[in-house]
Amino acid sequence: MSRAKSYDAAKIDTLAKSKLPALGIDLGGTKIRAAAVRDYEVITEPKQVPTPEGREHIIEALVDLVSEFKTDILMGVGIATAGIVNCDTGEIIGSTGNLPGWSGTPLKKVLESKILLPVHVENDANAAGYAEARIEALRKKRCVVTVTLGTGIGGGIVLHGRLFRGSNWAAGEVGHIKIAQDNKRLCTCGLIDCWEAYGSGRGLIMTAQEMLEGVTIDQSRLVKEPGTLTTYDVFSAAKEDDLMAKKIVERWHEHIAHGLVNLAHVLNPDCFVITGGLSEFVDFQLLHDMVADRCLPRVADAIEIRQSAIQGQAGIIGAAQFVIDELLTPRS
Amino acid sequence: MSRAKSYDAAKIDTLAKSKLPALGIDLGGTKIRAAAVRDYEVITEPKQVPTPEGREHIIEALVDLVSEFKTDILMGVGIATAGIVNCDTGEIIGSTGNLPGWSGTPLKKVLESKILLPVHVENDANAAGYAEARIEALRKKRCVVTVTLGTGIGGGIVLHGRLFRGSNWAAGEVGHIKIAQDNKRLCTCGLIDCWEAYGSGRGLIMTAQEMLEGVTIDQSRLVKEPGTLTTYDVFSAAKEDDLMAKKIVERWHEHIAHGLVNLAHVLNPDCFVITGGLSEFVDFQLLHDMVADRCLPRVADAIEIRQSAIQGQAGIIGAAQFVIDELLTPRS
Repeated sequence: MSRAKSYDAAKIDTLAKSKLPALGIDLGGTKIRAAAVRDYEVITEPKQVPTPEGREHIIEALVDLVSEFKTDILMGVGIATAGIVNCDTGEIIGSTGNLPGWSGTPLKKVLESKILLPVHVENDANAAGYAEARIEALRKKRCVVTVTLGTGIGGGIVLHGRLFRGSNWAAGEVGHIKIAQDNKRLCTCGLIDCWEAYGSGRGLIMTAQEMLEGVTIDQSRLVKEPGTLTTYDVFSAAKEDDLMAKKIVERWHEHIAHGLVNLAHVLNPDCFVITGGLSEFVDFQLLHDMVADRCLPRVADAIEIRQSAIQGQAGIIGAAQFVIDELLTPRS
Repeated sequence: MSRAKSYDAAKIDTLAKSKLPALGIDLGGTKIRAAAVRDYEVITEPKQVPTPEGREHIIEALVDLVSEFKTDILMGVGIATAGIVNCDTGEIIGSTGNLPGWSGTPLKKVLESKILLPVHVENDANAAGYAEARIEALRKKRCVVTVTLGTGIGGGIVLHGRLFRGSNWAAGEVGHIKIAQDNKRLCTCGLIDCWEAYGSGRGLIMTAQEMLEGVTIDQSRLVKEPGTLTTYDVFSAAKEDDLMAKKIVERWHEHIAHGLVNLAHVLNPDCFVITGGLSEFVDFQLLHDMVADRCLPRVADAIEIRQSAIQGQAGIIGAAQFVIDELLTPRS
């Protein structure tokens, strides 16, 4: 009976609160971006500042950004950040990639004391995955897995509309599944043969360097000074029919497919969403065929791979929406 | 309001029904075993018959087995079978491993028409995983992943106490995650470099054959007629300090660790449960250290690997308990 009573009170509260937007902040290695979000949509012009160095300066920058929005009409602030995050305490608890020294920051506590609004802190790939999986077409699916392809590989697993965070806040660290034997490549995380060491931008360049060994400048325009080759070089050469570049890009697709095949056999998702800076270079038909070809028939039947429709905004939307959704429904 | 009303009715129904056991049947490639189950425990002496050949004969054997129990005191019958199963229709819909011709069988429909009791059909690794994850110590965990090591590798993923079946009934087909590149080994499923092709009994023998190339009988007692080496040979030689056998067993642990590392970075489970015929040969301390060593620190912190405490009974218990639990609570 007490449940029924509190339901009505909560419902009224929900209706009142749901008209308020939340501020979403995407804290990246090079820039911090923020915008107000309501109903899974960005409703203000995003603001952006460069990411300063050092914990104190980052926190200052976050506080300044928040103050640029009318905080009296915000439900709260959601922050998508690199690193594994304890979402109960809002503390950064592990592997922060391109934000050195950020691990250990009690971000929620520090920020709430300064801005006097509820703060939710979330891993950036999780925040993006949440936003992707909550779009109209996917909201009711059993399982949506979002994979972010960029300087690293991140993942966000949403089951029945809710983010799955695992026993220790580390579910979805899919960039570190191991896709080779025999200790071939060191990953930036210190582990060996991680998916990220093959499928990320850095991985693509390593693949290119391996494949270009012994190749001459007459055979490929990608043969240049060591250390100067960029992902842009590879993709643009492939577009202009450089045979070697095309082979490298195909191999990169195989590497991405390998990780997706593994995820498909574990989770059998309704849909993969591919996002991140490198997703625009993915040949989705080729990737789909490669993945389906390497799966059990029943698993292959379910393979759907989409390109993100909210690329660049998903972190902001997801982080902000967590504030709204988590304040409205208690976490199980 | 209608929910509140139906809750009371359901509660009474639950109390009445919960005293009744269900029959669990584990349908394997060589034998069929059955026992009555209540409260996650086997409460009768199990009965066993050899698995006959052909769909019709298997169904006959199942009906005969059921009739040997007092069907008037059973809530229903749960069947754990090889193959991917549509649990709504109870039809076998894919990859049946060592039960050729079994795919396509509408098992629930056929059996219910013959035995006049509710039937639930479940993939065998899923049934085992459900039983493992519902033991007292694990029942409230966020994520328990059970891995069955035998002639193949199977998996069962239980999240918040409920089996996760994926979009297409194929979640947990973990034996077919790909753990090598360069097309090294063909799996029995037709795919290449599946975990199963390395970590199963068959995989162990293939590893042994590769590692024994060029080794003489003076160096290892495992050097014998081609095609005669068994997993038992390898494990018993290792136990008797045959150096080559020990190296092979260590490599086998590395292969098992590889798959667990991948599952750990995707799901970050509270606990892995290892079961199946080969689990008794696992050095759990070694396996734990290998897995933790190959995981991100935060993921490594959460690694717990247990040996099954209900080995050999988990399929029967899980299948039967599904009948009880699914009749009592509607599936989400």
